[in-house]
Amino acid sequence: MAAGRTPYDVLIGPGVLSHPQLSRRLGRGANGIVVSSSRVMRRHGRALQEALRKTGFETRRLVLLPDGEKAKSTRGWERTVGAMAKARLDRSSFVIAFGGGSIGDAAGFAAASYMRGIRVIQIPTTLLSMVDSSVGGKTGINLAEGKNLVGAFHQPSLVLADTTLLRTLPSRERQSGVYEIVKCGLLRSESLLRLVERTRGLRRASGGDLETAIAEAVRIKARIVERDERESGERVLLNLGHTLGHALETATSYRVFTHGEAVGYGMDFAVDLSRRLGLATPAAARRMLASIRAAGRRTPLSAALVSRTREAVRSDKKREGVELKEILLAGAQRPRIHRFKTRDFAAHAGEWLISRLERVPKRRG
Amino acid sequence: MAAGRTPYDVLIGPGVLSHPQLSRRLGRGANGIVVSSSRVMRRHGRALQEALRKTGFETRRLVLLPDGEKAKSTRGWERTVGAMAKARLDRSSFVIAFGGGSIGDAAGFAAASYMRGIRVIQIPTTLLSMVDSSVGGKTGINLAEGKNLVGAFHQPSLVLADTTLLRTLPSRERQSGVYEIVKCGLLRSESLLRLVERTRGLRRASGGDLETAIAEAVRIKARIVERDERESGERVLLNLGHTLGHALETATSYRVFTHGEAVGYGMDFAVDLSRRLGLATPAAARRMLASIRAAGRRTPLSAALVSRTREAVRSDKKREGVELKEILLAGAQRPRIHRFKTRDFAAHAGEWLISRLERVPKRRG
Repeated sequence: MAAGRTPYDVLIGPGVLSHPQLSRRLGRGANGIVVSSSRVMRRHGRALQEALRKTGFETRRLVLLPDGEKAKSTRGWERTVGAMAKARLDRSSFVIAFGGGSIGDAAGFAAASYMRGIRVIQIPTTLLSMVDSSVGGKTGINLAEGKNLVGAFHQPSLVLADTTLLRTLPSRERQSGVYEIVKCGLLRSESLLRLVERTRGLRRASGGDLETAIAEAVRIKARIVERDERESGERVLLNLGHTLGHALETATSYRVFTHGEAVGYGMDFAVDLSRRLGLATPAAARRMLASIRAAGRRTPLSAALVSRTREAVRSDKKREGVELKEILLAGAQRPRIHRFKTRDFAAHAGEWLISRLERVPKRRG
Repeated sequence: MAAGRTPYDVLIGPGVLSHPQLSRRLGRGANGIVVSSSRVMRRHGRALQEALRKTGFETRRLVLLPDGEKAKSTRGWERTVGAMAKARLDRSSFVIAFGGGSIGDAAGFAAASYMRGIRVIQIPTTLLSMVDSSVGGKTGINLAEGKNLVGAFHQPSLVLADTTLLRTLPSRERQSGVYEIVKCGLLRSESLLRLVERTRGLRRASGGDLETAIAEAVRIKARIVERDERESGERVLLNLGHTLGHALETATSYRVFTHGEAVGYGMDFAVDLSRRLGLATPAAARRMLASIRAAGRRTPLSAALVSRTREAVRSDKKREGVELKEILLAGAQRPRIHRFKTRDFAAHAGEWLISRLERVPKRRG
């Protein structure tokens, strides 16, 4: 497939950066800024500039944020909206978010809050942001007190997922996106799981395979979000693997695991817990674990994580009162929303981590 | 009328602060914070605490912002969302905005952005904020580059306009609110204009008159906003008098005129311009000017304002490209949306200011 399209106007494929849809959306004489990072601009700046040149829009107005989570600071947000004001953007202007998920989240919140909301065009440059954060309209930045504590729901007016940009993506970052694709497969698509398994976690994927996988994951996410933009019901499904995943990331200050790896462990845990609670048969659980494993090797867990992760589960921002919702799986494509007391869930998570550590074969003395 | 009610759940009248609706909305065990200022808490803190005590919610969690426009800084916003995070507010929590328009705008934006939006209850303490900013869902803060440059549309879940709080309101602040009431009358209600004229700009209003005026103004604003929350069409009517009004405020760094006075001059100008362009008959214009004049004496204009105001019109943030929309009046309750080139509009405004200054009778030598 050359370019997929969902109700969210997501164009996927090689070279979609130069798709005429971009200049059609920007319109003539529209004013805007590009938000990116130095690293992304070094890698892909030329491709963006060429695409924009065709639209008559030049990237002289550029805000560079740091890479990774550091992009999502209140200071970076102030700098971005300040630059927008200095560039005299008005309600007809737009923001182009050009980078990974953090750049997209930060630029998206700047666009959502400037003049109470102007257009944002998401051009994700990583597999993870193509299948995950660029679609769905969640934007946000971090506070000292926790991640994503402030933000807005703000749908992009266009998403361009140009697979050419993935050619230079380090394999560890590619793998991080694969876990989110597996998540979508576990929620809604058997064929997507098969594609991931057949291509060994997309490591052996053809260009066509890659586009199919991205398009299918985006379609699944978009459909869920469409029915529940503000996460009052179904959207919570997308949190599959994320409660433990976030806790692992917090416990390691985001320095050890990629987001995908952490979610991969979270999905392993959700499957094991589903089996333990009698929700999934052992055979169904094995089948799901095999799909997750297809994404490849992960940074291993360590014993030091157990207590810190348990603590991080307890203080997760998503708690509502003392309960939390966790997504379990009766089988592939059979997700179930399950309520746990936060304390009980933290205990389950701790036990699981310990059992998982014990499963690691000891070296012979 | 004891308590008016619009689709926005606005309760109006003496003592509505203690209305059972408040505890019904908060629910049991809900967590929240109060955002206010030292001055407001000195004047009305006890009344709020008593009302909240009945709900079982105590105001120990209190964020104090400076009074006036200084409440609307990025620093104040960071401090507010930081306090919300420290108080471990979650998606079921709420913010109580207790103060004038600036406190309401700042607290509203904090509520809109914290966890992508939690509930806000607006308890306005000035006539202006009761009839204007507490209803309609516009929230925002200022940047160094301009006012209200960042913000969100976020409807309050409850507005309590307790007229008892107005007893201690200085007359200049009361008058500021009267101009916004006159604006609503000029847009939609002949009886409201008559009420303002009969009570000499509410200076001689009974308690019942005051409630009727607030309820009618709120009803008019709520109906317009309901049909056009995001200001793509009809909501622009509410800008009657505000293009020149904002320019006068900017030209004087918000230090000379109250918001109402500035809007009063803006409405005078809109009426005069409507007459000059042949849209309103001289008789209709006289009638409208008399309604505006009923609000009382205003801080006079000065010659030094002319060029600065013209400049401020040109750089108003609401410009879209080189055009602006101005609300003219063919007569009372006959508003018309008119497009001007920004340059032409600025010239009209400058000429009008000069003519207005010339009308001031010279002292005899």
